[in-house]
Amino acid sequence: MKDSSQIPTARDKLLFTPGPLTTSLTVKQAMLRDAGSWHYEFNAIVKSVRERLVTLAGHAPASGWEAILLQGSGTFGVEAVLATIIPPNGKLLVLVNGAYGERIVQMAQYLKISHTALRTAEDTPPDPDAVELALANDASITHVACVHCETTTGILNPITEIGRVVKQNHRVYIVDAMSSFGAVPIDFSAAGIDYLISSSNKCIEGVPGFSFAFGRRADLLATEGSARSLSLDLVAQLKGFDKNGQFRYTPPTHVILAFAQALKELEEEGGVAARGARYRSNHEILIHGMNDLGFRLYLDPRVQSYIITSFHYPTDPKFSFEDFYRRLSEKGFIIYPGKLTQVNTFRIGTIGRIFESDIRALLAAIRETMAEMGIVKR
Amino acid sequence: MKDSSQIPTARDKLLFTPGPLTTSLTVKQAMLRDAGSWHYEFNAIVKSVRERLVTLAGHAPASGWEAILLQGSGTFGVEAVLATIIPPNGKLLVLVNGAYGERIVQMAQYLKISHTALRTAEDTPPDPDAVELALANDASITHVACVHCETTTGILNPITEIGRVVKQNHRVYIVDAMSSFGAVPIDFSAAGIDYLISSSNKCIEGVPGFSFAFGRRADLLATEGSARSLSLDLVAQLKGFDKNGQFRYTPPTHVILAFAQALKELEEEGGVAARGARYRSNHEILIHGMNDLGFRLYLDPRVQSYIITSFHYPTDPKFSFEDFYRRLSEKGFIIYPGKLTQVNTFRIGTIGRIFESDIRALLAAIRETMAEMGIVKR
Repeated sequence: MKDSSQIPTARDKLLFTPGPLTTSLTVKQAMLRDAGSWHYEFNAIVKSVRERLVTLAGHAPASGWEAILLQGSGTFGVEAVLATIIPPNGKLLVLVNGAYGERIVQMAQYLKISHTALRTAEDTPPDPDAVELALANDASITHVACVHCETTTGILNPITEIGRVVKQNHRVYIVDAMSSFGAVPIDFSAAGIDYLISSSNKCIEGVPGFSFAFGRRADLLATEGSARSLSLDLVAQLKGFDKNGQFRYTPPTHVILAFAQALKELEEEGGVAARGARYRSNHEILIHGMNDLGFRLYLDPRVQSYIITSFHYPTDPKFSFEDFYRRLSEKGFIIYPGKLTQVNTFRIGTIGRIFESDIRALLAAIRETMAEMGIVKR
Repeated sequence: MKDSSQIPTARDKLLFTPGPLTTSLTVKQAMLRDAGSWHYEFNAIVKSVRERLVTLAGHAPASGWEAILLQGSGTFGVEAVLATIIPPNGKLLVLVNGAYGERIVQMAQYLKISHTALRTAEDTPPDPDAVELALANDASITHVACVHCETTTGILNPITEIGRVVKQNHRVYIVDAMSSFGAVPIDFSAAGIDYLISSSNKCIEGVPGFSFAFGRRADLLATEGSARSLSLDLVAQLKGFDKNGQFRYTPPTHVILAFAQALKELEEEGGVAARGARYRSNHEILIHGMNDLGFRLYLDPRVQSYIITSFHYPTDPKFSFEDFYRRLSEKGFIIYPGKLTQVNTFRIGTIGRIFESDIRALLAAIRETMAEMGIVKR
């Protein structure tokens, strides 16, 4: 019992995953405080976090845009948007090319929201022309949802091109930008985004515990009365913040203190552009190094994000992913299994408090591990 | 912006609230780690936490009882139980004598679960005979929900006496023990409890970020297919743990590490009995001291819990709660406003990492504050 109640190593293993990520010590140290969740000092932090998120999303403070924080993981945030804003007679078109698109379909099933899915292969972005056709063929579709970076593979979907079609056809556009917001530039206006969801433990480099959704106050308030869950009612959540600056229900206070610090560190790094540049550099060093080691990318580089990258298993029959994973873990590096049904892949994330030297250390550990396993370069 | 992004004081103010609470430094320090949410080392901690919770609830490891952790606040946990286990043709009887009972009614409304409420005054526990009558008069009622400690007032409801009636009448019994579990002894068997919900930041003295629900595996699995939300589907959550030891969706990893440490500290303190004794002592010192200062208890001592206590405002017209609250906050003590509609009260919690010396320091600060405000003892 004792053994399993603590993480064994003194130094944390580096996380090359889509999150939770490696975060800075200062972000974690911000959690060494106990704040009163109804207290005015904590309320001021919540207000500041919400305002800074709106700014980070590229909106002016008085633009009418809101950032609504919601307890739980990113999935809770996406489901909350669907459960709140889609009216009983609405119909959702979901663009699917991975597990997170499928998850949105699942949510619609649970919430009994009328829906249809437009699927492409996991290595293929949705086609704006196909979206156009789907909207033309079904006038009952009121909302369209698309995942920005599908971490199932690491593909970056063309949310701007799709958004143009959605807006030309006067539908409401919802973007799941869980793993991209904060590091991949997103132009809400050019993409015609009405709602966008992300979470605390992705590119802002906070710790997990809440998600946040962006939407226009007027749009949100106009949807009032449709919410299918009390906890997930984003309009009620917004009205709670309006009323007294508080969360309706207990917020993860420590996680929010960490997030305030993470926002500060993002600003100090130089914002979305600088963070995106670091992640892109991490990704490029990774793929060059992996190429040298004989690993093949799963995706076409033209659709590959710099968030997370899928690699094919080596063809050498001596390769066992479980063994490979455990050996890397013992060296202090945690990578990610694949999530594809048809192809054997594993994934390496390049986001979080991870720098060039960390990627080079990971590559050295992979080289060493392959030698230990006797795996021959293809 | 800078000023509002951090809590100003170097030493944390003590929290005399129903949670989030003052926690130990060692609990908070457990969060200075980044764990991989899919990694075997973290999975082992989740498994250990779930097993220790089952033991803490008084069940044998192989008893068939499960502790299911769910991201979000306690409210998410209560709504998840309702959203998961009540079939489409079920009907819920809610016993209401405060805001948390009313919240369960609200959840049923959102989830479109047929329901009825049995209300008593906020200072009056539900009457088992009235529950008996309600069940006799409405055969369509399938489930009964009751809040154990209603922190609206601090009243402790007689869950065992009510449970006997519920079980004699063969209904499913759900107890919201958010603020009592871990410090008030609960005999699941004597009370006939089928489901019980609590959260990470109450009497276990962890930090906020998840709730947990107890239920029998067989009962839970038999409810499969009714869940009204993907995120809140507790059967799917259980099956996720079964499958690979992981949360289905990103857990608050840091909060869970803190909770594992909090469970260790609860065990070291001597478990539920010892913790309950400390809280009871805190409460008794508080009410004697407050009585000396001229404050009157809102509740009859026979129904008053040792979790949180409501006090009437002093009758002196110079008393302003806002001023009183702020002056105490400036001295380092955060108390809680009242939540009653008819009577002016405020609340003082006696749970968390709070000891006799802290209660005495609070009493001294209240005495000083009253002198500053020129308030005369009644």
